[in-house]
Amino acid sequence: MNGMGGRSKRKETMETYIILRDLAIIILAAKFMGLVAKKCRIPAVAGEIVAGLIIGPCLLGWVAPSDFINQMAEIGVILIMFSAGLETNLKELKKTGIKALVIACFGVAVPLAGGALLYALFYGTEGPGSESFFKALFIGSIMTATSVSITVESLKEMGHLQGTIGQTILSAAIIDDVIGIIVLTFVLGMKDPANNPGIVILKTVAFLVLALLFGIVFYQIFKKIDARYPHTRRIPIIGLGLCFILSYIAEKYFGIADITGAYIAGIILCNIRDAGYIDRKVNINSYMIFAPIFFVGIGLKTDFSHIVVDMILFSVLFVLVACLAKIIGCGVVSKCMKFSWTDSLKIGVGMMTRGEVALIITNKGMNLGIIDSSYFTAVILLIIVSSISVPIILKLLYSKFPDKKTA
Amino acid sequence: MNGMGGRSKRKETMETYIILRDLAIIILAAKFMGLVAKKCRIPAVAGEIVAGLIIGPCLLGWVAPSDFINQMAEIGVILIMFSAGLETNLKELKKTGIKALVIACFGVAVPLAGGALLYALFYGTEGPGSESFFKALFIGSIMTATSVSITVESLKEMGHLQGTIGQTILSAAIIDDVIGIIVLTFVLGMKDPANNPGIVILKTVAFLVLALLFGIVFYQIFKKIDARYPHTRRIPIIGLGLCFILSYIAEKYFGIADITGAYIAGIILCNIRDAGYIDRKVNINSYMIFAPIFFVGIGLKTDFSHIVVDMILFSVLFVLVACLAKIIGCGVVSKCMKFSWTDSLKIGVGMMTRGEVALIITNKGMNLGIIDSSYFTAVILLIIVSSISVPIILKLLYSKFPDKKTA
Repeated sequence: MNGMGGRSKRKETMETYIILRDLAIIILAAKFMGLVAKKCRIPAVAGEIVAGLIIGPCLLGWVAPSDFINQMAEIGVILIMFSAGLETNLKELKKTGIKALVIACFGVAVPLAGGALLYALFYGTEGPGSESFFKALFIGSIMTATSVSITVESLKEMGHLQGTIGQTILSAAIIDDVIGIIVLTFVLGMKDPANNPGIVILKTVAFLVLALLFGIVFYQIFKKIDARYPHTRRIPIIGLGLCFILSYIAEKYFGIADITGAYIAGIILCNIRDAGYIDRKVNINSYMIFAPIFFVGIGLKTDFSHIVVDMILFSVLFVLVACLAKIIGCGVVSKCMKFSWTDSLKIGVGMMTRGEVALIITNKGMNLGIIDSSYFTAVILLIIVSSISVPIILKLLYSKFPDKKTA
Repeated sequence: MNGMGGRSKRKETMETYIILRDLAIIILAAKFMGLVAKKCRIPAVAGEIVAGLIIGPCLLGWVAPSDFINQMAEIGVILIMFSAGLETNLKELKKTGIKALVIACFGVAVPLAGGALLYALFYGTEGPGSESFFKALFIGSIMTATSVSITVESLKEMGHLQGTIGQTILSAAIIDDVIGIIVLTFVLGMKDPANNPGIVILKTVAFLVLALLFGIVFYQIFKKIDARYPHTRRIPIIGLGLCFILSYIAEKYFGIADITGAYIAGIILCNIRDAGYIDRKVNINSYMIFAPIFFVGIGLKTDFSHIVVDMILFSVLFVLVACLAKIIGCGVVSKCMKFSWTDSLKIGVGMMTRGEVALIITNKGMNLGIIDSSYFTAVILLIIVSSISVPIILKLLYSKFPDKKTA
């Protein structure tokens, strides 16, 4: 037994120290390309994905996708979604009122429909219930999540973040995330052909009820721990434990994406006193090791050698539809709510940026076998185009049509 | 291709979300048992190992050892050693002078000889060069590393940390780590029967020269980055990258343990201005996710069902020899250097505590197939006994023989 045990253990060690090489290359390449991207005013995540393309099988072949990298990337995604939940400000949300809610709803619905329509027109679909119909809906879901950080930065820079438009965009983007997650949950729930929409709704509602119960219990527990032991290690650790558990339960017992569970875990804890403390600790874990592995991992898995003209054309249309759908969805409904035309346009443009969450949803779809990795091209393009163009367009709009108080 | 790809990817996802369950159980159980242990005045790591025993195949069977857990644990070990290196104060070390150096040397040599002798007497050995001789040396190596944190805490509590004895212990413990790592490097280098001591010395020296070159280059690079971008994310990330690379190179090209590489990477960076900043970030990654997985992982792998009377007897003797060897090694040599008998005894007792590093070395030996997991029992017992007894003995010694200025 000793001999066998010794041998198998030796193999283990070999594998374990090889991961150190992959880790070193991944985190250094990600940081380097992330910084280069930022210099070029492109989002850092785009740089990290390019880092993956460079070090991966596509080009240098230094790092190959592996089970370990996939598992680390999964933890990265969970941490990002948990952090997004933690940064939700529920109290702020209650104040936002009906306008932001309506804008957010249309800002989700129009891109969802637009994306699905684009897919159907481009590839054809066999009507409700078919696999291609489901795929079309999924493409729509990818377009829903606004990533408002770049808009916030631009507005802050111009001094317009505290204005009506800035605050409306901010609130709408938060609600937009929540609605987007619910839509994704429904869409993914329908991937199983055995599930009819009734079952999916039932499962989703059942999970949300469970999450609510979890939320009430854990919120009280955390308030107590937080009052007795503020700023101790146990707080982020227990929080992270809750996040992992909810993610697991969501996927295992309700067929709901684990990222939804992580996001809800974040929302449960977003109003405790140490929410910011947990978020900081989680973020350090995220940015130092796990998140770069996720973004670089996308680059590793992306294979440009199989790319066809079709896909390039689809990607361009995808970017166009995704951007226009937000402008139309959010802009037109803003106009209906008595914003001026220019203010409505500002809101629409401000909601146009996409980021990490679009990548996370795409990745989920790929892991579940709904779409293949070639769709990453479209999403990466969308992130780059929207992140570069929004600040420019916003600056133009604000210089041509200075802010006026709107009703 | 789409069908196959989809299927294999679905399997991947199944595995990735299952790790969330394991992670949640591990970090929560570790934190809980760690806190329980602390309440009982036992080191938290002992509690975390017990958590592993409870949730592992030994008892509840909730979590089984897996490749993923082993890989995460390996990262944990690397982070702990990197942090130990970062916390080394080279400037302080230069000031310590010859006394601490001599005490440290004997504090390594006597336990090394004692442990080897114990193994040889207990199990018999076939003389230099044989496998059992090597095993005996390895058992000795496990006994070498002092973990001074508990001693420091006790001395601080009693207000004696700044005294001659406190400072001597502190310095000796730091040098002790460095010498211990060098000894370990030699011992592990000899595991390959093709290596004669000459080759091992050559490889070790070659690695140390390379590390020195790395050190000089990276120290300069870091000083520049640190001056231009203090307290930015890139600093801990590049530091961690260096740590992973050196660990990998050590093991891959020099047959030196990766933990040695990580420790040296820490020493390279311990004198830059942001060393504390890097250490804090690394520590957060370590205590939130990776380190608990390592300690719980030890519990998962430990199998008490095969334990025999022999092993229990050996463990008891192991603890005795390990404690006495430090007292004799450090104490007698202190007496020779004109400390009084009681002060020498205080120094010897202060150097007696063992901790994480002993576990890390044991784990390395197990992964390399040198020893089997049953030896963890002895090491865990040593950590618990030394950590509980040292503060008690020190208090007794200081109350019976109050501190006097020594030559």
